[in-house]
Amino acid sequence: MPIDTRHPRQIREDIRNGRLRGVTAGLGRNYVQANLAVLPKEHAYDFLLFCQRNPRACPIVEVTDAGSPEPVAVAPGADVRTDISRFRIYRHGELAGEVTDARPYWRDDLVAFLLGCSFTFEWAMIEAGVRLWHVEHGKGVAMWSTSIPCRPAGIFHGPMVVSMRPIRGGDLARAVTASARFPGAHGAPVHIGDPAAIGIRDIARPDWGDPQEIAPGDVPVFWACGVTPQAVALASKLPFMITHSPGHMFITDLPNSALAAL
Amino acid sequence: MPIDTRHPRQIREDIRNGRLRGVTAGLGRNYVQANLAVLPKEHAYDFLLFCQRNPRACPIVEVTDAGSPEPVAVAPGADVRTDISRFRIYRHGELAGEVTDARPYWRDDLVAFLLGCSFTFEWAMIEAGVRLWHVEHGKGVAMWSTSIPCRPAGIFHGPMVVSMRPIRGGDLARAVTASARFPGAHGAPVHIGDPAAIGIRDIARPDWGDPQEIAPGDVPVFWACGVTPQAVALASKLPFMITHSPGHMFITDLPNSALAAL
Repeated sequence: MPIDTRHPRQIREDIRNGRLRGVTAGLGRNYVQANLAVLPKEHAYDFLLFCQRNPRACPIVEVTDAGSPEPVAVAPGADVRTDISRFRIYRHGELAGEVTDARPYWRDDLVAFLLGCSFTFEWAMIEAGVRLWHVEHGKGVAMWSTSIPCRPAGIFHGPMVVSMRPIRGGDLARAVTASARFPGAHGAPVHIGDPAAIGIRDIARPDWGDPQEIAPGDVPVFWACGVTPQAVALASKLPFMITHSPGHMFITDLPNSALAAL
Repeated sequence: MPIDTRHPRQIREDIRNGRLRGVTAGLGRNYVQANLAVLPKEHAYDFLLFCQRNPRACPIVEVTDAGSPEPVAVAPGADVRTDISRFRIYRHGELAGEVTDARPYWRDDLVAFLLGCSFTFEWAMIEAGVRLWHVEHGKGVAMWSTSIPCRPAGIFHGPMVVSMRPIRGGDLARAVTASARFPGAHGAPVHIGDPAAIGIRDIARPDWGDPQEIAPGDVPVFWACGVTPQAVALASKLPFMITHSPGHMFITDLPNSALAAL
């Protein structure tokens, strides 16, 4: 896949102007990409507390001030309403539309949460020499809802969603250490091996994403997934929520190393 | 100083029953001790966001559900209203009293925040062979308000408070690496060397705590301090707040290693 090595400011400008419309994998090499969840201030405390209580699934990159679409700490000058190429609008937990400009849906009481994403630790694993089947084959990862409960907070509760990558036995230790360096982007795996131990019945049939090819000698490795907070927020049937569309992430000015442990 | 190596449950029981009344340094060896800040739910979102935006100064160990004094994740069965030996009650930013039982002041809308404390990284530095003057001499650390701004959140804003420990030149690298391992307890220093660079005018006169003896070859090393959120909360003149009294910490069931980077 070709890599766009420009500064995220320039890439976001292309997204804002409609010149870039697709998924963001490979854009802004070495910069943190983030999941977006926008919800009313009324529910922001519970959601922030949920993220704080479940940091592996919900690593917070930025929380905007109520009413402000600018993530001042991680992308000064940016606007989350225009600088993502595709959004989903949810009402009462139901998908109400998919749009390329979120400005008409903005309100003064909305808070935008940016949450760390797997691209950061996948980059770290690839740098460490770990082979990733889905990257090499241009697929998405496989994701499941598990039997691992999140710690609830107010109206938000539900199971942890995990992503799975098949890892060669010889790469296993490096896959753990490379991802563990990035607690701000899901960190180390939450489970290695037997899918049934975390409530996954059929490793060939993910709940979301693409099935993975597990070769002889590969071990399924599971990481907490940023789909968790979205799934939990949808399950709570919030009256209103905006998210990015899958794969269409917000690209920050933070280098991936900013999410590493000190 | 004698070390009380019993499980924190037993130490908390002694505190609850009035058998232990003093400061908690040396109690519950190897267990995380925490700062307490209790405030009304109305202000809890801003405070939680302030902590999230200033994690070096305000590392969150636990946030209780509104109305509940039990830190279920870090000390199940405990009660922050009775299991700390001395509290301060603040009204509109003014000290209104010091009490040994916070139950008469409890309300259904209160949220208790437990924040990481320097004991954890000091323990890590001592284990690493770093000599700490104030520990060897039975003193407190020295603390100053600095010219480093915290990132504001809602009604909360103000400067970072730091603690200073003189470190021998030969111990400097180990002091950094040992404390950096514990991002959940202030982590690595925020500044090393020239006090004036962070707005400290007189290194001999701390704003809080005890003056430190800086021997030839010692370097002043500054860490973000848990006094920061209290100072910021007081400056905001919240109508009501409860904190622990200095040095009278809440002892959790978490081993110090739980606050280490993964």
